[in-house]
Amino acid sequence: MASNKSNSNNIYNFKHTPNLTINTNLKLESGKFIKNPSIAYKAYGKLNKNKSNAILICHALTGDQYAADQNPVTKKKGWWYDLIGKGKVFDTNLYYVICSNVLGGCMGTSGPKSINPKSKKPYGIKFPDISIKDMVCLQKKLIDYLGIERLFCVVGGSMGGMQVLEWGINYPEKVKLAIPIATSYRHTAQNIALHEVGRQAIKNDISWMNGNYIKKNKTPEKGLSAARMVAHISYMSEKSLTSKFGRSKKNYTPLPQIFDGNFEVENYLQYQGSSFVKRFDANSYLYLTKSMDRFDLSEKYNGKLENAFIKNSCKWLIISFTSDWLFPTSESKQLVSALNANACNVSFVEIASDRGHDSFLLKVPRLYNILKGFLIGAKF
Amino acid sequence: MASNKSNSNNIYNFKHTPNLTINTNLKLESGKFIKNPSIAYKAYGKLNKNKSNAILICHALTGDQYAADQNPVTKKKGWWYDLIGKGKVFDTNLYYVICSNVLGGCMGTSGPKSINPKSKKPYGIKFPDISIKDMVCLQKKLIDYLGIERLFCVVGGSMGGMQVLEWGINYPEKVKLAIPIATSYRHTAQNIALHEVGRQAIKNDISWMNGNYIKKNKTPEKGLSAARMVAHISYMSEKSLTSKFGRSKKNYTPLPQIFDGNFEVENYLQYQGSSFVKRFDANSYLYLTKSMDRFDLSEKYNGKLENAFIKNSCKWLIISFTSDWLFPTSESKQLVSALNANACNVSFVEIASDRGHDSFLLKVPRLYNILKGFLIGAKF
Repeated sequence: MASNKSNSNNIYNFKHTPNLTINTNLKLESGKFIKNPSIAYKAYGKLNKNKSNAILICHALTGDQYAADQNPVTKKKGWWYDLIGKGKVFDTNLYYVICSNVLGGCMGTSGPKSINPKSKKPYGIKFPDISIKDMVCLQKKLIDYLGIERLFCVVGGSMGGMQVLEWGINYPEKVKLAIPIATSYRHTAQNIALHEVGRQAIKNDISWMNGNYIKKNKTPEKGLSAARMVAHISYMSEKSLTSKFGRSKKNYTPLPQIFDGNFEVENYLQYQGSSFVKRFDANSYLYLTKSMDRFDLSEKYNGKLENAFIKNSCKWLIISFTSDWLFPTSESKQLVSALNANACNVSFVEIASDRGHDSFLLKVPRLYNILKGFLIGAKF
Repeated sequence: MASNKSNSNNIYNFKHTPNLTINTNLKLESGKFIKNPSIAYKAYGKLNKNKSNAILICHALTGDQYAADQNPVTKKKGWWYDLIGKGKVFDTNLYYVICSNVLGGCMGTSGPKSINPKSKKPYGIKFPDISIKDMVCLQKKLIDYLGIERLFCVVGGSMGGMQVLEWGINYPEKVKLAIPIATSYRHTAQNIALHEVGRQAIKNDISWMNGNYIKKNKTPEKGLSAARMVAHISYMSEKSLTSKFGRSKKNYTPLPQIFDGNFEVENYLQYQGSSFVKRFDANSYLYLTKSMDRFDLSEKYNGKLENAFIKNSCKWLIISFTSDWLFPTSESKQLVSALNANACNVSFVEIASDRGHDSFLLKVPRLYNILKGFLIGAKF
């Protein structure tokens, strides 16, 4: 169980800035509204006179707006630090790079831990249901606020890639280049199953308190940690786990206590789980995983994905990784096929990497080269 | 939390028979002893005069001795009902088929829920650490008791396959045919990681009570259920999950409550988890998964697996399934290679099946044909 102490130095103590309040009602896909939603974002580089050099980076499930600079909670470098900056792939000498925390997130944008204007207390599970499209709808309001008519590029991996897809489909005239990485147009049964295990772990934690843990000064740390552990396994390939840990043991004791994590991989996962709870909100995890599970671009078109891309004017680059078993190449190929069925402008690259789904977050030189070449070739 | 009621009609209320008490100390690999261990077993068919027609079936992690007949707890058919019986693959007109509950199990054989002779209370986590070899050592005592000099065949899948390997290596003169199915000579980092998530879920459940839940009349149902859910995902292939459920929804509601399992696959997993807790003991799950994780046949040979099979006299049949991502074909091939390095008698078959690791428990005609042919060809 969490004490007061465990709430210090974590997401609940930060006022993430800039934190823009949109003075309007955000209409959600469900028909409900969020009154005056907030969107926390970071921007790097300079917007040019024509406002034609903006790149929007969409983060994944547990990412945030701190894409390039130090994360104030973890004190770690931004999750795409190696990609964003002067002379880097997303070159801040050339581009104005924006990254905002998603709707439903926990780093400053409206989400379950935000204050409900009605009750003056955190929403918790009274936060309305949200979709990937709703996330994009809020991002669009930020882009409008910044006065950007058309984004030079929208790019992101995993859940970020789902947002790229919604951008390209809903606002094709607002997006020049669309780059969905390691993603899919809908979650498979296995994806849903893995998420459901994580959600069960959170809801089984008695500190979850039916979602009211913030008010009661608790944190469902164990449940959230377990959810992270199972997700983490799915982000790595068998080969990357093996090459990182194999069967190495922390302290060699032939048959130690049943409680101990005697393999390195166990300790690593436990560490991953326990460090995650310091930076992420359990209810956000429930909402965001649900929005991914429900995401299905073909649904509105009676299962005909190609109809989502009729006359689509974006220039698409679809990227997958060979060892990604969560969003395998076959999923990306379905997107490519749907785009090709409409004679859209689409390129596709499968990158050889043995590091699993996480490859989009790691230093994979071919990924860097392809992104850089695609951006330079397109010109804003 | 469990009530008295939840303990009725489950594993804690059964006296599983026949339940043989071995009047000796079982020496474990750890150097510790279990005094007068019990082994619960079932046998089908008749032992012939020469006692040369015995087949030992080794069950998997959550299996039990009720391989062919109705399980008294679940009231379901035995887990290999379709394989064992008159005229079936393990033909009880020909063979004497034995299946015993493993050491550390919860269906009558000595395990964490057994009564500790010292304290007169359930062992709980005071039960000593056990290994796959220890399981086989106890089975050997049963075989000795039955007066069987040499088993015609030892066969099993997954953790059962690990036992087959220990049988063939430690008692080659006692085993004519050895058939390890869908298994490996050691767990990979991914296997260990998946188990560790399950163990964390159990230990995180406050009803686990540091392993003393039986004394306190509780059951860590939620934790054990979550452990089962994550394991279940790993037992199925992505294709089998998709063809069974895809994205079908239970009740179509566009954006339902965050709590609801709105996809069929979620409800199925929840059902799998909750029905599992009625038939399995959480501490057994901890002990048995640990014994699988620690299992490494090459360890005693400085990583040289082939040295485990020097002059091995058994006739081996190794079987894997194409869609098994928990114990992929590559693992079986390493066994084949190690056996071939010693010019051992080994056959290997990879069976095409899109049903994942669970294939060894399912009606896979090619599996049945191969097993039947191999047994008939060998003659006892």
